[in-house]
Amino acid sequence: MATKARVMYDFAAEPGNNELTVSEGEIITITNPIITDGTKDGISCGNSLADQAFFDALSSNTAQTSSAAKSSNQVNNASDPWSGWNIGKSGNWDNGTSGDSWATKPESAAGQRNSASNNWDTAATFGHPQAYQGPAAADDDDWDDDWDDPKSSSPSYLGYKETESSEAGGSQRGNSRAAAMKLPLNKFPGFAKPGMEQYLLAKQLAKPKEKIPIIIGDYGPMWVYPTSTFDCVVADPKKGSKMYGLKSYIEYQLTCTNTNRSVNHRYKHFDWLYERLLVKFGLAIPIPSLPDKQVTGRFEEEFIKMRMERLQAWMTRMCRHPIVSESEVFQQFLNFRDEKEWKTGKRKAEKDETVGVMIFSTMEPEAPDLDMVEIEQKCDAVGRFTKAMDDGVKELLTVGQEHWKRCTGPLPKEYQKIGKALQSLALVFSTSGYQGESDLNEAITEAGKTYEEIASLVADQPKKDLHFLMETNHEYKGFLGCFPDIIGAHKGAIERVKESDKLVATSKITPQDKQNMVKRVSTMAYALQAEMNHFHSNRIYDYNSVIRLYLEQQAQFYETIAQKLRQALSRFPVM
Amino acid sequence: MATKARVMYDFAAEPGNNELTVSEGEIITITNPIITDGTKDGISCGNSLADQAFFDALSSNTAQTSSAAKSSNQVNNASDPWSGWNIGKSGNWDNGTSGDSWATKPESAAGQRNSASNNWDTAATFGHPQAYQGPAAADDDDWDDDWDDPKSSSPSYLGYKETESSEAGGSQRGNSRAAAMKLPLNKFPGFAKPGMEQYLLAKQLAKPKEKIPIIIGDYGPMWVYPTSTFDCVVADPKKGSKMYGLKSYIEYQLTCTNTNRSVNHRYKHFDWLYERLLVKFGLAIPIPSLPDKQVTGRFEEEFIKMRMERLQAWMTRMCRHPIVSESEVFQQFLNFRDEKEWKTGKRKAEKDETVGVMIFSTMEPEAPDLDMVEIEQKCDAVGRFTKAMDDGVKELLTVGQEHWKRCTGPLPKEYQKIGKALQSLALVFSTSGYQGESDLNEAITEAGKTYEEIASLVADQPKKDLHFLMETNHEYKGFLGCFPDIIGAHKGAIERVKESDKLVATSKITPQDKQNMVKRVSTMAYALQAEMNHFHSNRIYDYNSVIRLYLEQQAQFYETIAQKLRQALSRFPVM
Repeated sequence: MATKARVMYDFAAEPGNNELTVSEGEIITITNPIITDGTKDGISCGNSLADQAFFDALSSNTAQTSSAAKSSNQVNNASDPWSGWNIGKSGNWDNGTSGDSWATKPESAAGQRNSASNNWDTAATFGHPQAYQGPAAADDDDWDDDWDDPKSSSPSYLGYKETESSEAGGSQRGNSRAAAMKLPLNKFPGFAKPGMEQYLLAKQLAKPKEKIPIIIGDYGPMWVYPTSTFDCVVADPKKGSKMYGLKSYIEYQLTCTNTNRSVNHRYKHFDWLYERLLVKFGLAIPIPSLPDKQVTGRFEEEFIKMRMERLQAWMTRMCRHPIVSESEVFQQFLNFRDEKEWKTGKRKAEKDETVGVMIFSTMEPEAPDLDMVEIEQKCDAVGRFTKAMDDGVKELLTVGQEHWKRCTGPLPKEYQKIGKALQSLALVFSTSGYQGESDLNEAITEAGKTYEEIASLVADQPKKDLHFLMETNHEYKGFLGCFPDIIGAHKGAIERVKESDKLVATSKITPQDKQNMVKRVSTMAYALQAEMNHFHSNRIYDYNSVIRLYLEQQAQFYETIAQKLRQALSRFPVM
Repeated sequence: MATKARVMYDFAAEPGNNELTVSEGEIITITNPIITDGTKDGISCGNSLADQAFFDALSSNTAQTSSAAKSSNQVNNASDPWSGWNIGKSGNWDNGTSGDSWATKPESAAGQRNSASNNWDTAATFGHPQAYQGPAAADDDDWDDDWDDPKSSSPSYLGYKETESSEAGGSQRGNSRAAAMKLPLNKFPGFAKPGMEQYLLAKQLAKPKEKIPIIIGDYGPMWVYPTSTFDCVVADPKKGSKMYGLKSYIEYQLTCTNTNRSVNHRYKHFDWLYERLLVKFGLAIPIPSLPDKQVTGRFEEEFIKMRMERLQAWMTRMCRHPIVSESEVFQQFLNFRDEKEWKTGKRKAEKDETVGVMIFSTMEPEAPDLDMVEIEQKCDAVGRFTKAMDDGVKELLTVGQEHWKRCTGPLPKEYQKIGKALQSLALVFSTSGYQGESDLNEAITEAGKTYEEIASLVADQPKKDLHFLMETNHEYKGFLGCFPDIIGAHKGAIERVKESDKLVATSKITPQDKQNMVKRVSTMAYALQAEMNHFHSNRIYDYNSVIRLYLEQQAQFYETIAQKLRQALSRFPVM
């Protein structure tokens, strides 16, 4: 859905204003469908266009979030967490915003440029990061107050029409994020930070304090794992309110397993963390989007629980990641001591400049540079694998959703009907007036009740097994949805290197520049491999665990049914 | 659907011609919808009208046969013996021909008169049974040749359009029987035999050679059971042909377990037997209709097998019945020594005059007469029970059919999809290039194959359990479909006795006549109770057996699935 617009007049960026300098006759590719008036404004005056584009490249995840939002809302209506999953084609891989990265083969440079060049052409075009001064500090409190509960901001959500409204609200989430971007976009300085060209061509990369070593292990490049790991328990969702009850929100308690200390966070804080992690690590590490912020509805409690479970899963994922879990922003999110420390840390994180492609500047592979052929092959292999796995995961989700529906809908109803029919028959039989058949009739009645019990077992079973298989696959769908952007960044860098010979020939860059580029692309390739090795080891563990759990639960389920049937059978008189 | 017609001219019956004497101004109630031209003719000239009416009263079973025919044909198309059962409302209890006997309460005489009075008003109106000379002998051979294979009589059944044509043929069965009646109606002398009035009011009942004692057992009135029982094995269906191959038919071998001698019979012979049993015993004993004559079609072998199974079940039922199995017509059917003996026996059976209501004249209850209150109560109780059981059986059939469809359709498809999805995922995983995950991938592949096996198990299971539950219920549906006629006859007799006081008062009958009536109705009541006790003991045995079988098979089924899942589980590496 990329829209091209020829610039009709020169527009000089004002330093410090996150603007894009464009000249008459240049072609601007607008990669995000323009929906909100606010975004339109942003374009009509050229304001934040680059921010928007960079954000788009990174956060086409919002499309997924939007889809998740939609489904969660359907869940709300159907009271069934899987019945509404919009598994089909709404993922990152093929949404309209970024184009279908996989519509053409990953090997096809043309096919890749779509998302890769978004990062590249737009984000790399401007370069005054140091000049940026976000107004973050100024309206921190203001921002702190919105976003929380549609009830408070929109009285129309009250009462019966809530579900309808909330659904609309849910499906607008992708947009609302974009809309929100228009206001606080410059609060995410990452989006205004140097792009690919900056990273690849800088004479000397500023040495950031953070260092992310990449070592070579038995399985190839890998992150360095901390000696002690921790998890974070998300619990105790509490409804809070402020402004004399006008605004209400849900607050969760987060307890680190290593410190055993707790902090409280509202959903919007998770959302803030997600955005920070996405901005900082999103081109190197897949950061799956958060479970959607569930608007309150008729099934509030159920869905607060469901969201909490998913927030838990998300936090556990992050805690499991050696780079994310050790990052300052993540640590600070879990370990601040008071409101002041939280706000200070928050502002600091928002000013972090080691974000976007610059994250690679912190990475230090302890290995010789890779050659370009190998780099490209590795990148392509990752692209193929993640695309194929994305397909596989979606297939399983589709099948699982269908199965969920059947197991919770028509199948138990049928067992119930069988049960009722047997009991009716026994009741009729008992009116025969014929002597000595009461044993049989009691046995048939019990058999009927057994089928009613089986109906309940069948209906409840998916929560015990399929649920986990679905959740795991859904998490992986989230991960895999991040890869088009990641692969895109790598492909973009590789393309840049491929084109660099021409630049050297025309003296636009020096041979040293080119050598730097190769080295930096090699670093990126090591990072990709380290991340993939992390991904694979987690995948193997997760799928092994969840399929084992599924099979074990299924076996128990069928054994229970068989036992019940044998028990029912034993009541029949032998004739 | 009874049509009333005022007779416009006198019509004197010709003795021996099965005609009805009607007079100008009389009201004739035509109880069968007139469909075939032949039947129309029969009415316009008054020919065989009484036969038709008597036949209707007895053989509203044909409506059921028609329904069965329809379903069997659908079976033919769907290759699924239960997918096509037209369970709903097509039974005898509520078809248009006999009126819905149960639309009003059995206690309501008005409601009852509909079917009861059919027998009574029409069948009892003419009275020259001894004068009858059927032309049965004359065209025996001719009759022997028709009815067999639509292929031979109608070339349009050949080829691809066969199924369509055959379906039409099937649904016409009820009519074709009526149509066939028009031609050979007078071959069934039973229909022209004395009716209820004759039985109840005869000064002295002719003592038939047959005697059917009714004794009082532990459970009340009962038939006398023969000391040795036998079954009849229906086997070895063979295609035969005659007329130089122009006519083809299927012939079955019937072997009596007591004599171990075999005879061969074509379907039409079974059909003949059914008609004879219906004519002879149909007002005292439920004679379920035969499985429909399946026209040959694309699934010929499968359905010859299916029909054979049902013929087997039908024969076994008949062999189990102490009165039917010992009857001359039944014995002769199984034990004739050569073609000549068969034909002689056949002609004799067709001339049998102890048919219809006259069967009660053979019955000798070894107990004092019942009083009318008790008789009516018993009759009502049977009516209520059989109606309620009919509902229960139909409910179970409906549920079972639905379950059959699911188990053979969407459910195994879903398990297959789960299996395929797991295998696809394992295939993707195997391309990761990550070491040491082959054990997991093989385990996932095996789990996938296990789900494919489960798909087959699920799809095949109904044949192993639900099939028998359905067949038993279908048989009972057949039995229960006979009861409106049976109850109707009893109710009709009871009504006649109730009205008899008036007749005595007006000297139309003597007090002795009335006493005879009470005695004969009492005999009928004993017969009904004896038959019900036979019915109940069979029902208890059959339902006990079939539900036990069902539960046992279901338990085994779930155990097998659980075992397979455990085996699949054991292949997963422990991490």
